[in-house]
Amino acid sequence: MGKEITARAQDYSQWYLDLVKKADLAENSDVRGCMVIKPYGFSIWEKMQQGLDKMFKDTGHVNAYFPLFVPKSFLAKEASHVEGFAKECAIVTHYRLKNAEDGSGIMVDPDAKLEEELIVRPTSETVIWNSYKKWIQSYRDLPLLINQWANVVRWEMRTRLFLRTTEFLWQEGHTAHETAKEAKDETLQMLNVYADFAENFMALPVYKGKKTESEKFPGAVDTYCIEGIMQDGKALQCGTSHFLGQNFAKAFDVQFAGRDGKLDHVWGTSWGVSTRLMGALIMAHSDDDGLIVPPRLAPIHVVIVPIFKTDEEYEQITKVANQVKKDLQEKGYSVKYDNRNTHKPGFKFAEYEMRGVPVRITIGPRDLASGAVEVARRDTKEKASMKLEELVSQIPVLLEDIQKSIYQKALAFREQMTTHVDSYDDFKKVLDTKGGFVLAHWDGTTETETKIKDETKATIRCIPLEGSMEKGKCVVTGKPSEQRVLFARAY
Amino acid sequence: MGKEITARAQDYSQWYLDLVKKADLAENSDVRGCMVIKPYGFSIWEKMQQGLDKMFKDTGHVNAYFPLFVPKSFLAKEASHVEGFAKECAIVTHYRLKNAEDGSGIMVDPDAKLEEELIVRPTSETVIWNSYKKWIQSYRDLPLLINQWANVVRWEMRTRLFLRTTEFLWQEGHTAHETAKEAKDETLQMLNVYADFAENFMALPVYKGKKTESEKFPGAVDTYCIEGIMQDGKALQCGTSHFLGQNFAKAFDVQFAGRDGKLDHVWGTSWGVSTRLMGALIMAHSDDDGLIVPPRLAPIHVVIVPIFKTDEEYEQITKVANQVKKDLQEKGYSVKYDNRNTHKPGFKFAEYEMRGVPVRITIGPRDLASGAVEVARRDTKEKASMKLEELVSQIPVLLEDIQKSIYQKALAFREQMTTHVDSYDDFKKVLDTKGGFVLAHWDGTTETETKIKDETKATIRCIPLEGSMEKGKCVVTGKPSEQRVLFARAY
Repeated sequence: MGKEITARAQDYSQWYLDLVKKADLAENSDVRGCMVIKPYGFSIWEKMQQGLDKMFKDTGHVNAYFPLFVPKSFLAKEASHVEGFAKECAIVTHYRLKNAEDGSGIMVDPDAKLEEELIVRPTSETVIWNSYKKWIQSYRDLPLLINQWANVVRWEMRTRLFLRTTEFLWQEGHTAHETAKEAKDETLQMLNVYADFAENFMALPVYKGKKTESEKFPGAVDTYCIEGIMQDGKALQCGTSHFLGQNFAKAFDVQFAGRDGKLDHVWGTSWGVSTRLMGALIMAHSDDDGLIVPPRLAPIHVVIVPIFKTDEEYEQITKVANQVKKDLQEKGYSVKYDNRNTHKPGFKFAEYEMRGVPVRITIGPRDLASGAVEVARRDTKEKASMKLEELVSQIPVLLEDIQKSIYQKALAFREQMTTHVDSYDDFKKVLDTKGGFVLAHWDGTTETETKIKDETKATIRCIPLEGSMEKGKCVVTGKPSEQRVLFARAY
Repeated sequence: MGKEITARAQDYSQWYLDLVKKADLAENSDVRGCMVIKPYGFSIWEKMQQGLDKMFKDTGHVNAYFPLFVPKSFLAKEASHVEGFAKECAIVTHYRLKNAEDGSGIMVDPDAKLEEELIVRPTSETVIWNSYKKWIQSYRDLPLLINQWANVVRWEMRTRLFLRTTEFLWQEGHTAHETAKEAKDETLQMLNVYADFAENFMALPVYKGKKTESEKFPGAVDTYCIEGIMQDGKALQCGTSHFLGQNFAKAFDVQFAGRDGKLDHVWGTSWGVSTRLMGALIMAHSDDDGLIVPPRLAPIHVVIVPIFKTDEEYEQITKVANQVKKDLQEKGYSVKYDNRNTHKPGFKFAEYEMRGVPVRITIGPRDLASGAVEVARRDTKEKASMKLEELVSQIPVLLEDIQKSIYQKALAFREQMTTHVDSYDDFKKVLDTKGGFVLAHWDGTTETETKIKDETKATIRCIPLEGSMEKGKCVVTGKPSEQRVLFARAY
């Protein structure tokens, strides 16, 4: 089974698609650009949702639900927003089907045309700020800290499972505040929540920074992002947090009576991560044998595979396996005992490697006799013998070690793939030979940014918030630069 | 605050709308027929989701996600299904907006017309069975036990918050089986899961039964349902579970190689409950002072309100309140200490009554001196004095009692509102004077069913699975009947 996927070195892009298919994560549907998230893939997404949802609630946010449809006129209310989003989207124009008079089947009823077309939400700022207008009158109504888990649709021409699909699942936080400072603090708080989640759950180190003017969210004053690196040296934006200023409050006339009794527009933020994180998770860690899932996101932490010949052996092994399973479950771990008699152990090994189950325990008759079993970790493929009586105390330690070890490996890779560059020639050379992130000086103009993008396909992923703060000269124009910015070719 | 809603006796329908608004559960959006589920309402829905999701997983189901859009041709594949669902729905015909050439704003780009229109899913049988065709080859791939949490859209002409909205949230289970028996067992298992959930979480007793031919799900062989009664004597369908036979398997050509090596079509089920349950919850239990939420679905179990004059009193009360809160939280209860100094105790009392918090603890200086506090339960409005040191052991007992008591009250009401009737005159009289469920004999024909519906507005809610099994004569035609069936006017 393990050999059924293309090797990364041979074709990274095909490796990714093969893995997504073979690990049963997702597949393309017959609906153009829309994916089906299969049960195993969805169970990882559920783990992500649970982790994030708790972090949102711990920082004072609550969930709510707003309509799927955005009236066309709403989109037009914020000038930059409409430029960015009123493009490729799904448009509902009619509300009824009928039987064709010629008996050829069902057809759209031309009499059921909507007066105003509805857009399937590409993001919900407009719908939500339209509600906030009714909810906010006074500073006492602030802050409003709301998150929504939802599906959104952006009509993408070229799609790739998880990374870019016409419909995707995400969460979108939308908050309203009394002061600019509070809204800015919220924007950075949520950026940090995302970075913590990426690092501590996904085992993915990320750079935090600010987007340039040309890359920011349409309607935002500032967009912040976290950027990760994939094994092929390309960057992937993993989450964004926007300081909206008073833009949407002004567009939707959301004013509040302040502590001084005066009316002012509310300050806003929005922030989101999506099923794209599934793509990041896969591409950051996995290998030619399949998925590698950090334990904190693994639907199954431990799989136990029995090896036996006789019924008696099977019964003895099963007794021990069930006890180990029970003991570990009581400690909060998810354990599967795979006692299928339709498949051989080798097949099962390959299957769980493909699915990225962090720890595999093999139990055979000799193991029972010696009181020790073979424990294999998925990330390094290392195998070790572990005493039966120590399993329940040692497996949690091992899982913790795997979580850290996956992160450390990803961190080392990112460090290795982050290059300081001081000339445009070196800039291009590094991109073409090594790839990864390039930290270089930039003169701050959109003109230079565009030139670099056109000539090298590298974009400014962000203006980092930490590190690389020394001044210098733009690698293209030689003009002064306040700090290095982070370039990369990106997904 | 409590007086701000219409009394049930005065106008039940307005009472409902007032309550939904004042308890901050939901509101109409500016998008026709679509609601906004507000944070407090959503937190109750999250409790419902958690309870149901666990029950689904405990019975072997897994979650997945399928596309929002259904190609028009998919709907047409199952003959009854298309009759039922290819009607009022949201139809996506275009995929791009553009700036109008006359500068009047954005418009639908006529060049971006879809070759085949996409329907926003009214239910997902067609999309899901189209996937199952790829997933099922052999009996080894069965059963397939999948659930999806999703939004769906049905273009409703008259909408009412939670009860009937154009977009609503729901879960839809879709399973595939090797034999008719397995699929039938699954259908009934999920019906029982729904009934358990209604009774044990929502404290709502329900009748379980089968729908008549004219009321069954388009595409099903048999539809089963749970039916509850609201305080105004009208019935509300709370959940449905469908035995699909081989209908969708045949429509989408889903065949499997059986144990005998022969190809056969797969047997299917589907089952769902929606945000409509929120409407049922509200209408079954609440009173003229607001919402009553059974503890198992309450986002906040206990609210503590301090009563004080001096800072010193406030500090002493706060110390005790925080300890009680901490102790109860450690036992798994959700506790809010409302120490806002912007609102008076009376205002807070009314607010938490409106929101249906099951238990309120009031702590004042004299309570601290006497070592006992006032504990008020929301359902009966009874107040009792409880010793401080017994709070942590007694509040859980009280919550359990409230849960049972709300159920018992609803059960007694349902029993009182279920009438056996043996003549059509009595049938009409009971409906007009008392309302509720009427158990009467019916001759089994659609003709009689339609006549009764036209003349009395009562429909057959279900053919009950339990009780009332004695034979008799149809109240309308006098023809023989195998058992009484359940009639009511319904939402």
